[in-house]
Amino acid sequence: MGNSPAFTATPQSPLRVAVAGASGYAGGEILRLLLGHPAYADGSLVIGALTAGGNAGATLREFHSHLLPLADRVLAPTDLDSLTGHDVVFLGLPHGHSAVIAEQLPDTTVVIDCGADFRLTSGDDWKRWYGTDHAGTWPYGMPELPGARDKLVGATRIAVPGCYPTSASLALAPAVAAGIVEPSVQIVAVSGASGAGKSPRVDLLGSEVMGSVRAYGVGGAHRHTPEIKQNLSALAGTDVSVSFTPVLAPMPRGILATCTAPTTATADEARAVYEKAYADEAFVHVLPEGVLPATGSVIGSNAVQLAVTVDPDAGLLVVIAALDNLTKGTAGAAVQSMNLALGLPEGAGLSTVGVAP
Amino acid sequence: MGNSPAFTATPQSPLRVAVAGASGYAGGEILRLLLGHPAYADGSLVIGALTAGGNAGATLREFHSHLLPLADRVLAPTDLDSLTGHDVVFLGLPHGHSAVIAEQLPDTTVVIDCGADFRLTSGDDWKRWYGTDHAGTWPYGMPELPGARDKLVGATRIAVPGCYPTSASLALAPAVAAGIVEPSVQIVAVSGASGAGKSPRVDLLGSEVMGSVRAYGVGGAHRHTPEIKQNLSALAGTDVSVSFTPVLAPMPRGILATCTAPTTATADEARAVYEKAYADEAFVHVLPEGVLPATGSVIGSNAVQLAVTVDPDAGLLVVIAALDNLTKGTAGAAVQSMNLALGLPEGAGLSTVGVAP
Amino acid sequence: MGNSPAFTATPQSPLRVAVAGASGYAGGEILRLLLGHPAYADGSLVIGALTAGGNAGATLREFHSHLLPLADRVLAPTDLDSLTGHDVVFLGLPHGHSAVIAEQLPDTTVVIDCGADFRLTSGDDWKRWYGTDHAGTWPYGMPELPGARDKLVGATRIAVPGCYPTSASLALAPAVAAGIVEPSVQIVAVSGASGAGKSPRVDLLGSEVMGSVRAYGVGGAHRHTPEIKQNLSALAGTDVSVSFTPVLAPMPRGILATCTAPTTATADEARAVYEKAYADEAFVHVLPEGVLPATGSVIGSNAVQLAVTVDPDAGLLVVIAALDNLTKGTAGAAVQSMNLALGLPEGAGLSTVGVAP
Amino acid sequence: MGNSPAFTATPQSPLRVAVAGASGYAGGEILRLLLGHPAYADGSLVIGALTAGGNAGATLREFHSHLLPLADRVLAPTDLDSLTGHDVVFLGLPHGHSAVIAEQLPDTTVVIDCGADFRLTSGDDWKRWYGTDHAGTWPYGMPELPGARDKLVGATRIAVPGCYPTSASLALAPAVAAGIVEPSVQIVAVSGASGAGKSPRVDLLGSEVMGSVRAYGVGGAHRHTPEIKQNLSALAGTDVSVSFTPVLAPMPRGILATCTAPTTATADEARAVYEKAYADEAFVHVLPEGVLPATGSVIGSNAVQLAVTVDPDAGLLVVIAALDNLTKGTAGAAVQSMNLALGLPEGAGLSTVGVAP
Repeated sequence: MGNSPAFTATPQSPLRVAVAGASGYAGGEILRLLLGHPAYADGSLVIGALTAGGNAGATLREFHSHLLPLADRVLAPTDLDSLTGHDVVFLGLPHGHSAVIAEQLPDTTVVIDCGADFRLTSGDDWKRWYGTDHAGTWPYGMPELPGARDKLVGATRIAVPGCYPTSASLALAPAVAAGIVEPSVQIVAVSGASGAGKSPRVDLLGSEVMGSVRAYGVGGAHRHTPEIKQNLSALAGTDVSVSFTPVLAPMPRGILATCTAPTTATADEARAVYEKAYADEAFVHVLPEGVLPATGSVIGSNAVQLAVTVDPDAGLLVVIAALDNLTKGTAGAAVQSMNLALGLPEGAGLSTVGVAP
Repeated sequence: MGNSPAFTATPQSPLRVAVAGASGYAGGEILRLLLGHPAYADGSLVIGALTAGGNAGATLREFHSHLLPLADRVLAPTDLDSLTGHDVVFLGLPHGHSAVIAEQLPDTTVVIDCGADFRLTSGDDWKRWYGTDHAGTWPYGMPELPGARDKLVGATRIAVPGCYPTSASLALAPAVAAGIVEPSVQIVAVSGASGAGKSPRVDLLGSEVMGSVRAYGVGGAHRHTPEIKQNLSALAGTDVSVSFTPVLAPMPRGILATCTAPTTATADEARAVYEKAYADEAFVHVLPEGVLPATGSVIGSNAVQLAVTVDPDAGLLVVIAALDNLTKGTAGAAVQSMNLALGLPEGAGLSTVGVAP
Repeated sequence: MGNSPAFTATPQSPLRVAVAGASGYAGGEILRLLLGHPAYADGSLVIGALTAGGNAGATLREFHSHLLPLADRVLAPTDLDSLTGHDVVFLGLPHGHSAVIAEQLPDTTVVIDCGADFRLTSGDDWKRWYGTDHAGTWPYGMPELPGARDKLVGATRIAVPGCYPTSASLALAPAVAAGIVEPSVQIVAVSGASGAGKSPRVDLLGSEVMGSVRAYGVGGAHRHTPEIKQNLSALAGTDVSVSFTPVLAPMPRGILATCTAPTTATADEARAVYEKAYADEAFVHVLPEGVLPATGSVIGSNAVQLAVTVDPDAGLLVVIAALDNLTKGTAGAAVQSMNLALGLPEGAGLSTVGVAP
Repeated sequence: MGNSPAFTATPQSPLRVAVAGASGYAGGEILRLLLGHPAYADGSLVIGALTAGGNAGATLREFHSHLLPLADRVLAPTDLDSLTGHDVVFLGLPHGHSAVIAEQLPDTTVVIDCGADFRLTSGDDWKRWYGTDHAGTWPYGMPELPGARDKLVGATRIAVPGCYPTSASLALAPAVAAGIVEPSVQIVAVSGASGAGKSPRVDLLGSEVMGSVRAYGVGGAHRHTPEIKQNLSALAGTDVSVSFTPVLAPMPRGILATCTAPTTATADEARAVYEKAYADEAFVHVLPEGVLPATGSVIGSNAVQLAVTVDPDAGLLVVIAALDNLTKGTAGAAVQSMNLALGLPEGAGLSTVGVAP
């Protein structure tokens, strides 16, 4: 494709990066990754404004005491004044808040939205699930999907995928694209609590979450369903039926998605399809036969570990995907997208090595 | 039915109850329930021999420091000498070890096996999944299944169901029996670590389990699959296809099973089927519309909480079941079965109230 | 002492019990214990009004889905209208809210306050730590303290101790009362998250709590310090210096308190003092030499497990206490106090058996 | 001191680094840090032999599935054949196993021992606590202790400190060295389960660890006590009395140490002492007044966060230290020591940024 990145980042003329919504989990994880980015280390990327809504005026330490180098930074309000003058602006805002900010920023600013606002292609879908008018559709920050990477190179507006759709799409895309499954998939995805964000809700209190798992959004009620359907249907060239059940588990991070679809392929045939599809992908790993992934292996990393098998008695492809919802599921995809947009090495600042145990 | 319990329990002539495998999780939970049983409180049930394999000779405190009233009991070896002279013998032994003990005990002794040995009706299934000769089939300790309760009254040999099959069978039985679903079900069940037992395995260490979820036994590889299939096929009157994926979550107890099957019923129709099926059951609760269960609500209790709904877009019945794998999933079912066998009130010593948070 | 309970509880004329603050953790745990109380089982105690502040109008299920038998109860407002006509009223209200309610209730109503309002004897201490006028001092619901039990028999106003003071006081009282330690104690107590209550605070979110421990109230800043000091100084007959550090651990329930004081006694001498002091106490257990307690052993129980030893090199008595902050630390003590006040068996509805693992 | 590093690391002539005990937690964490080390990234450091005891012959994936780039490496036996030919050898072996290996390796090989063998200066202490003959004393890998850093530059034998002694020593060293406290300290340190290593012990199973805290090694019984005493006594110039209680918490990583010592200093005076002592240290952070550390803020990082205050009523300095037992407490200190030994930047491959939540 014809875009080419207009940015040159050097210590003399560094990229200026702002993070809006810096007090939340997505914002914090973006900052963690930027602090480990080689461009930050050599001075060619500087961390500019950190902004927040109700938390503006406080220091970052109050929300992210793990980000020691930035602990004394004071949060600015999320407005044009704060965000102007940056080359890259990450948005980690509540759903529906990104469009207002984005339209005020110059077209040349790279705006990377971690919210849902610009993910869906169908305005009707948006209206059905979010109830407001659709703001538009931006290039989709999942470079491992067929055709997606090219649209991110040089892009100045990017919609970061949802965490559940990332797990389900990467787990099912090769099979759907290769036509080895029927267009009817089921996904049960177990997620850590950070996926629900940082709102002070009683049902997310540690006492409620620890020692318990629970489902939510059952029966097609979760807003990530249309995004999964959109991704898979585009690859299938037909409408894919999607059953998606999210489950909350007592851990801070991680998603383990169990994904099935009817197939007549053998396990070896299926695995071959996946190994080919992801042969050149740095962050998606098809595990050897018999090895199953654990979310604990990918914490803090941008890696997705996939187990691909077939249940011959049930006639189902079964793919298990593990990823970190905050990294590959949000902030890692955001930084990976930034790298592509700016012409930096795609994996810069991202790791395939998790923090375990 | 013709059986009638031959036992009369009084403080003057109390029931003597032994627990073989008392150092394990199933054994410990049986003892916890017995200590709270009204027959224990009034002296008409006494806790006799507590036995173990390699742990014989140690005190119970070393394995179950929460069972204070029995903490100084010394574990006897699991053999006929220790177990003889009891009215009831609970077996909490590794799979394949129950038959040898059971055949040495008199026919009049009530033997309640928490292992898998006597659950399956098909010798071929047993051979395929366990690799040894089939020991036989005993009355199945899940009284809420159609037809099962009568066979437990007065029984002297009882096979306690597996924990996963309990969740899946109770979640799907009404729909399958009523014929409102096609005979093709999928189950993803998230379990606490105690379901894997108390063996000193590296992959079950706290450091490995905490902060991580992982699948295991994917693609039809878990031994509980044929038990689920057996239960549902008997109700359907035809072979039911079963896809079962167990997932390990970072919590000690609890199972949350997400169960689906193709349906054309509406959510209201489906819920009505379940409400009718369980209207008289003390331990199975169909939650009101819109309420979803959490395992944290049933810890230590014999309750099963079910959410019943339909995903109309996917054409699927979705039932979520929450239970405590050690209580309703094992020891609670064992005590409930003992009560039925002995003619005690079915719910004696069992609660519908969980310990939360 | 001269009081004698004026209550006779029978199914014909049952005790009516109300719980104010029923949506909180203390209220929920009181209800859990009442549901298992033999007087509830035989109908001589009925659960009357359940009240709440901002949560009035909702069903109990929304806050305590584990309390199945009461799940459909609607919460009434916490006011005189709701609470009048009960024989016993438990108060599980924020600190400072109990006095207003209590003074409206008849003197003959047994009012049991789980808040701090009536624990301290010194009005100056109250003023220093809570900043408001002192409401008064009620009999103190820790019957295991020397002299405390008699004052609870027939009492109609009872202040339930704080959870940390319960652990520290029971851990140190025998040594202080026997004079085998110098009046200078240090306590580091690790608590589960439910001790901080059910307010929707960001720092109590599951994502923040899991995988992390943190101290709070360091350097003499926690409000439980004066209550510990009050208890120990009364026993010592002199002012006891108290250093208290609370630590939050990633678990819902439980307190493990490490308590030290200078001593010249040997470990055997110290243990003998404790064994004598608690010989007749049903709920306080001095563990055998070499055995150390775990909070996991006492969850849901009213038991306190104590390890008593001496570090001869450091010249310190070291006592480790484990209890459940919601049970013996709050609701269990409340029910134990109710039993004493009403002339019921002190341990009715309470267990020494924990739910583990 | 006169040593100067003899190594020059270039991609043409890279450093070869081996890890003995690679299947354990210390070995895994060293490898995680090496994979993120800039010298690994630029090819001037290569990861050579990975060895194990009983696990030799297996792939690294079976033990550390988070270390994707090394997942297919086969573990060699821990012997001279495997370890010869490396410039740096990390030892992550059970206590008592390091000396035999170390004495076979050339003096020019940098040997960094994560075990206890070479930490103690007193042969009598070693004999008392470990029961065998003392192997010797190596330079101590805690560069932040006064006088320690110089001894590490160019060293070819380094003893990495214990995780608890790291927390207690860094928390108390400035006060002891400055003479603002009496030589009598108390430490209660709460640790994650990985500190106990990766042995398949029943008491470390997830089911036992989750939802529970417990003390162990109470009353001066933990082997880390003499190491703490050695560090502090050297700074005090007199024998320091040390009371140390380790507590196990339900989390994989992290230590929170609550440390006290009698003082007459004010909080401001104390904090000034600490701020001066650690002004030039990259990895030890004295938090602002009123801020308390959480272990969750330092996971995966080499940072130590310290809160310094005084309890005036009790007359005690109270210092709370948070660190990651596997990073700064073991592998981070090992890599930091390697950097010093080799003349690399001390902080290379180490971060002050934790992975949270």
